[in-house]
Amino acid sequence: MRTTTAWRSTGDGSVTLERVTIERRDLRDHDIALRVDYCGVCHSDLHRVKGMLKEGAIVPGHEFTGTVTAVGPAVTRFAPGDRVAVGTIVDSCGKCAMCEIGQENYCLEGPTSTYGAKDRVDGTKNQGGYSREFVVTERFAYHLPDGLDPAGAAPLLCAGITTWEPLRAAGVGKGTKVAVAGLGGLGHLGVKLAVALGAEVTVLSRTPDKAGDARALGACDLLVTTDEAQVAAARYRFDVILDTVPIEHDLTPYISMVALDGTLSILGYPFPTTVAIMELMRGRRKLTGSGTGGTRQTAELLEFAARHQVTADIEVLPSSRVEEALHRLDNNDVRYRFVLDLSDLDQPAA
Amino acid sequence: MRTTTAWRSTGDGSVTLERVTIERRDLRDHDIALRVDYCGVCHSDLHRVKGMLKEGAIVPGHEFTGTVTAVGPAVTRFAPGDRVAVGTIVDSCGKCAMCEIGQENYCLEGPTSTYGAKDRVDGTKNQGGYSREFVVTERFAYHLPDGLDPAGAAPLLCAGITTWEPLRAAGVGKGTKVAVAGLGGLGHLGVKLAVALGAEVTVLSRTPDKAGDARALGACDLLVTTDEAQVAAARYRFDVILDTVPIEHDLTPYISMVALDGTLSILGYPFPTTVAIMELMRGRRKLTGSGTGGTRQTAELLEFAARHQVTADIEVLPSSRVEEALHRLDNNDVRYRFVLDLSDLDQPAA
Repeated sequence: MRTTTAWRSTGDGSVTLERVTIERRDLRDHDIALRVDYCGVCHSDLHRVKGMLKEGAIVPGHEFTGTVTAVGPAVTRFAPGDRVAVGTIVDSCGKCAMCEIGQENYCLEGPTSTYGAKDRVDGTKNQGGYSREFVVTERFAYHLPDGLDPAGAAPLLCAGITTWEPLRAAGVGKGTKVAVAGLGGLGHLGVKLAVALGAEVTVLSRTPDKAGDARALGACDLLVTTDEAQVAAARYRFDVILDTVPIEHDLTPYISMVALDGTLSILGYPFPTTVAIMELMRGRRKLTGSGTGGTRQTAELLEFAARHQVTADIEVLPSSRVEEALHRLDNNDVRYRFVLDLSDLDQPAA
Repeated sequence: MRTTTAWRSTGDGSVTLERVTIERRDLRDHDIALRVDYCGVCHSDLHRVKGMLKEGAIVPGHEFTGTVTAVGPAVTRFAPGDRVAVGTIVDSCGKCAMCEIGQENYCLEGPTSTYGAKDRVDGTKNQGGYSREFVVTERFAYHLPDGLDPAGAAPLLCAGITTWEPLRAAGVGKGTKVAVAGLGGLGHLGVKLAVALGAEVTVLSRTPDKAGDARALGACDLLVTTDEAQVAAARYRFDVILDTVPIEHDLTPYISMVALDGTLSILGYPFPTTVAIMELMRGRRKLTGSGTGGTRQTAELLEFAARHQVTADIEVLPSSRVEEALHRLDNNDVRYRFVLDLSDLDQPAA
């Protein structure tokens, strides 16, 4: 076993993370070890730390970048020194129809999440990227393309791919009318990626005060969803709406703004919701959702992001300030994603 | 004004229809008059007779075929003697983006339904096809192709087009895996049309007793939705599911059987429904709906139906037995659509 330093929740539901020494497995044939340099702070990390899954103490973190430090004997795609990225999935059955097409996020046996899940080989509970070292089978590691800032790129591995897959599934391209509801970690990357794909992007917001931010991200417009006249005037306007709002909300105004045969894609609130079927019937509108991404499209996204210089707008904090990051995220006080710099874990604890 | 004989509800919510004389408007420039020969009995007729819209007495009927008897001076597409069909819409604004592409069912001003709606010119409440004569602007009349039985074709104008548009929107063709839930007026035509499009069709039913009927309609399989093992084994199996079930029901088992990027199309129950968003997220499944059809695809459907000899499986009753038809429909006692033969209205009342 190898050991490394990590930030682990206490498991009592409080937003308290302790600096601890944890074990990492010895490299299996197809494993690589990496030094984690930057790890994004996802809203789901916060939910999990707060005990949503009642899973006890966890080391969160499932969007991170770093540098390969060692490789197992059968590794073919990586060598020490390579820039590398890891996302929300670290294993899958590898054999089912979903895995075969690179949609391991829908693996029929269930994909193995990056933290808090059972390792498929030894059954131990795995631990995420709020740590200085990580070990992963090379199938779920990605080359971080040259020219992509490793801190700004980290959130692409969760927030980015979660918006990328539905944009691609909907065929978004030049001139597509896209709207994005919720301007947080997911939403701001949804705007940037849609703009880079050539879409005409509108931000949907409850208040007009984010209009400047929306334009800075490349959106051409902001629509205030609490203004009924604006919503009515936008009936059938958008080919695709990405809904990244993380709390329960009425979908009907959003559905009403979807174009004939267009799509409302739910990304932020994965719980049972009442849907006005009649409003879907008008215009054969589609309600869909999407959950992170598979290896094929994650690799595609990283190439695209490098080519178009799309990274997250981030605030980098030394990892010792992880609790501050989580508290501020809880208060919606971030534009738009915290990224932890793990290098302080090389120093003795304060 | 012209007069004709019709079956009109009493407006007190009972399933009672009286034989009455009603007025039809004099022909406007673009109008045609037709003798109604056959009119299908749609589930929505029953709801409306029972007072769902609290609209008082109505003459139902919105899927019928007949023969042109007279044409207005500006009519170009029809001549007396032509075989003709009329569906659920008899007018629309004619100018909006939806009308321009032949999707008048989604007219931005709201389409004019065939009965119980306000005429766009004179504001009178219009009356449907349970009558011997009908007057309609030629834009909403369809040539009934040679070789299509006029009685069996009548239900194509509502039940048929309601399943045709979602099949076409989903790109159903050779080898597409389609499932149809609910084997009534809509469902049985959904099966026949999907089979004719080249799809591999499965009927979803709560019980196994419809297996023979399903095969007779061209389906290759029947899946019993109350059998959890069958549903679990069909996870991700169908590219398209048409859900024609007219009562409230749990959509989750259906969603679970939709393939990656596939579609569940709700056609039978247009009311607010709780949706398991997480189940949509798995596989980016799409929930959609559809409401009857526009002129472009209705004309397309009639041509297709003639070429492939697809008509409804019907039970023809003289129109004087309309109450019996509605009562039996209410008891689900029909395979699969009642069609009224209106010729008895030429005789004196019994």
